[in-house]
Amino acid sequence: MEVLFTFLPNEGMQQSIIRDFPEADFHFAYKDKSKLPTADILVTYGEDLDDEDISNANNLKWIMVVSAGIEKMPREAIAKRGITVSNVRGIHKTPMGESVLGHLLALKRSLPEIYKNQRDHKWERKFRSTELFGSTALILGPGAIGSEIGRLLQAFGVMTIGCNRSGNQADHMNEMISFDELLGKLPEADIVISVLPSTAETKYLLGIEHFKAMKQEAVFMNFGRGDLVKEEVLIEAMNEGMITYAVLDVFEQEPLAEDHPFWGMNNVIVSPHVSSKSGMYVERAMEVFLPNLRKWLDGIQDPTNLVNMEKGY
Amino acid sequence: MEVLFTFLPNEGMQQSIIRDFPEADFHFAYKDKSKLPTADILVTYGEDLDDEDISNANNLKWIMVVSAGIEKMPREAIAKRGITVSNVRGIHKTPMGESVLGHLLALKRSLPEIYKNQRDHKWERKFRSTELFGSTALILGPGAIGSEIGRLLQAFGVMTIGCNRSGNQADHMNEMISFDELLGKLPEADIVISVLPSTAETKYLLGIEHFKAMKQEAVFMNFGRGDLVKEEVLIEAMNEGMITYAVLDVFEQEPLAEDHPFWGMNNVIVSPHVSSKSGMYVERAMEVFLPNLRKWLDGIQDPTNLVNMEKGY
Repeated sequence: MEVLFTFLPNEGMQQSIIRDFPEADFHFAYKDKSKLPTADILVTYGEDLDDEDISNANNLKWIMVVSAGIEKMPREAIAKRGITVSNVRGIHKTPMGESVLGHLLALKRSLPEIYKNQRDHKWERKFRSTELFGSTALILGPGAIGSEIGRLLQAFGVMTIGCNRSGNQADHMNEMISFDELLGKLPEADIVISVLPSTAETKYLLGIEHFKAMKQEAVFMNFGRGDLVKEEVLIEAMNEGMITYAVLDVFEQEPLAEDHPFWGMNNVIVSPHVSSKSGMYVERAMEVFLPNLRKWLDGIQDPTNLVNMEKGY
Repeated sequence: MEVLFTFLPNEGMQQSIIRDFPEADFHFAYKDKSKLPTADILVTYGEDLDDEDISNANNLKWIMVVSAGIEKMPREAIAKRGITVSNVRGIHKTPMGESVLGHLLALKRSLPEIYKNQRDHKWERKFRSTELFGSTALILGPGAIGSEIGRLLQAFGVMTIGCNRSGNQADHMNEMISFDELLGKLPEADIVISVLPSTAETKYLLGIEHFKAMKQEAVFMNFGRGDLVKEEVLIEAMNEGMITYAVLDVFEQEPLAEDHPFWGMNNVIVSPHVSSKSGMYVERAMEVFLPNLRKWLDGIQDPTNLVNMEKGY
């Protein structure tokens, strides 16, 4: 059984994996797919595969994607071959929950002003700080990450409204609505947070009418995928001051061009797709992968967090 | 019964107070103590009184201090006259809890770098973000504010150690220690937060040995009073890099002078004593005061949150 990693866990982790699974052959090859034709299992960030790779990977039975998004994968080719795909659903919930709360609290408690006044050596107490307490947040995509955000928001006394396709109950949501009910509910939200993946149903889900429906004091946060809303829509909404702040961790085109208008807009926070970053990342991914690998080698070829390549999530 | 306010609740609130308490005469006089000689009750931020005021205030029986600190009050004169003093203990817990968590999450999730790179129009993902999750926090002064901070930290998976004079149990602390045990416990803490008031026992409680005992990765936050640690001690600790960050909301001398070294230190965050600021402040203070005023007028002269002028808390 050959297992190919196209990224490098640290040396100590590689040694411990080799030691714990003597029945498998491991190849740790950074961005190197030369061993793919003989690999049975591929462990990848999911951004390095094309149709040709899949047709050459004759033995491949399982792709473990060590990230949440699978939109860069050759989904049709993988589905046609019947290759099992699983991911690390939920692995981002801790760092992303902390990033979302960090950005929100920073804005409520005037941290950008505090930092700026420090640069200017200015003791200035006249800015207006507000509280997260008592707000209402609408969370688009209350899955593993969204419900962790909901849990943290509730600890701060925030009322949470989850929004998904079905409107079916999700954890840590005081209320649930479906995508169909979104537009009508937006006027109630002080905070609108998306952690939606990119799918046919979420692409350009938000239009200018959604920003018009939000409160003028609202904060919009996109921590899911950039194609939730057309860039020109977001620019119009922010230029017109339809809402107070947009905090963006994802963009239609990444990296953002140096002359992109978002950089200079004082009601937009640009975060360079880093909200899931954490020193704990690979360690947590291995905590998902290795028990599944053990089961697989024992003949139970049913990893957790299966991804349907046709649906895209 | 005359009630003097030396600050101004907004017009609507003044009217509603006058309407709800027809049996009392209210004077709303911004920083104006001319009605003090006849006032029975004084509602004040606690920074506008001296010995002479107290000796002239012949009718004064109750001072309601609409802040947490009473160190600027003429305590001896008030104690000698037997005037009841009460405060708004706990009123700061929501904004201060949010400020503390906001600053911590901002540092863990690299918000200062993200803001800086935005100013430079620079898409840079190579900074190192970490997590609050799994840390240990030592909270000096786990009273109303400190235990609210403990509650929020626990929601983020932080282990909390409370530290007070007695070591007696406090809310939302996984462990409690006394001041005597502090030095020995500091090496375990990733975060050290003080919300201690200024008293004889807390003045200069921390010396250079405490900073030497902390982890090099530790973050120290002073959100209590500036005289917890001598300024020169803090400057030495940060210049020597004994810990990673100090986040300071309070200082020995406020405002901080324009040429003070703290402003320019890249491991110090200067917050100009604003962590308790909130648009909800006066409203919450009145939620404490008005029920106590009702009881007082009904003959029950026993307001909540009594302050002992001799002990100073």
